[in-house]
Amino acid sequence: MTNAYHPTPRSRVKRSPTRAIYDHEKVHAILDSAMLCHVAYAIDGQPYCTPTIHWREGGQVYWHGSSASRMLRQQAKGMPVCLTVTHFDGLVLARSAYNHSCNYRSAMVFGTARLVDEPEEKRRALDAITERLVPGRAATLRPMSTQEIKATSVVVMEIEEASAKIRAENVGDDAEDGDWPVWAGVIPLVTRTGAPEPSPMLSAGIALPETLAPYRAGRRLDEVMAETYAAYAGKE
Amino acid sequence: MTNAYHPTPRSRVKRSPTRAIYDHEKVHAILDSAMLCHVAYAIDGQPYCTPTIHWREGGQVYWHGSSASRMLRQQAKGMPVCLTVTHFDGLVLARSAYNHSCNYRSAMVFGTARLVDEPEEKRRALDAITERLVPGRAATLRPMSTQEIKATSVVVMEIEEASAKIRAENVGDDAEDGDWPVWAGVIPLVTRTGAPEPSPMLSAGIALPETLAPYRAGRRLDEVMAETYAAYAGKE
Repeated sequence: MTNAYHPTPRSRVKRSPTRAIYDHEKVHAILDSAMLCHVAYAIDGQPYCTPTIHWREGGQVYWHGSSASRMLRQQAKGMPVCLTVTHFDGLVLARSAYNHSCNYRSAMVFGTARLVDEPEEKRRALDAITERLVPGRAATLRPMSTQEIKATSVVVMEIEEASAKIRAENVGDDAEDGDWPVWAGVIPLVTRTGAPEPSPMLSAGIALPETLAPYRAGRRLDEVMAETYAAYAGKE
Repeated sequence: MTNAYHPTPRSRVKRSPTRAIYDHEKVHAILDSAMLCHVAYAIDGQPYCTPTIHWREGGQVYWHGSSASRMLRQQAKGMPVCLTVTHFDGLVLARSAYNHSCNYRSAMVFGTARLVDEPEEKRRALDAITERLVPGRAATLRPMSTQEIKATSVVVMEIEEASAKIRAENVGDDAEDGDWPVWAGVIPLVTRTGAPEPSPMLSAGIALPETLAPYRAGRRLDEVMAETYAAYAGKE
């Protein structure tokens, strides 16, 4: 038996249940290979969907932002949240409109957000954001001031439940549509890094450091994120 | 004066308000240049964040899925929703952790979802999904069966309020950090189309059609989506 999240009606995948995944390892791999997530929460019954950067430590996910953020001030109180990561991998074009689909890897994680207010945990978390994205970078930066730490809020959520779905195949046409005379197949979609654009204020003689080697131009972002996450997590 | 959405406390951008955009034209451009959105909604106080494909007609956004979908069955009842589109354009690396940022174009639209159940409106919407993505394709497909139409639900939301945020610049370091000896700049991120992968069941002699020319390999997805949307909307 693998370690797995235990679905309840909240997290159980209902549509295309054969695509459902609850394994820790597979859910975490989807989270860890993404830089961007979307966080859903509700204030007085009004849902919001906010894009942000997340990172994972064991069975917890973190995100952060300005201490003045409406989202973070509300979530700090302890609020049910759904955090979703989606890798959009392709547009699937079938012979019938009905069988059109998408290739994707997505994970939804559920839990209760809370503020990280213990000073040492907060400082570790603030370093972790940088280190998770660019291992080795935090120590090279101008140190954070007390005021900057105060102006930033970090939120953490224990993953109570999670599910993932993956579609990674070519067209699923009906057998009787096989002869319909229209092109069918997949248009792959990939997010890649571009050539680094140095700050116009960069002092002469500062080259791109070795820590940014994983981000060399043209790489798949999901691979960069999986690789930097492994380097980050391996260090701990 | 341009046409603009009128922000209330629900949609007014609080953080970095100089990045806030309410113009119809600019909000719609962000929506129309994306294939993927995330929809936030709450069932019995539990928020959900679901990735899906959306499209816009005037001041309304649509999405669709299986009639058995939990999301769509709940939203069909008339439910407050927040639909968010995010183009993630770059990782911004500053000399201090605090000034790290992201380049992005995001739009949040708010309204009340309702089921499209009028048969003619539903049929038009189901054609629109295909036409919006690949103008000219709907007429080439095996026609939809009554059962397929029944098995699909379409949801529409009048955009009651909307806001967008854009960051598209290099690093915003503090002036006094300019000499700190660390590389600073932007790692651009771009989602592009890959080489089309034909269905293994494709009959001999069926070449990639002219309708898929916008999706030729290596193009920016946001540009393909803006171009196909313009072709689709121009036809009406």
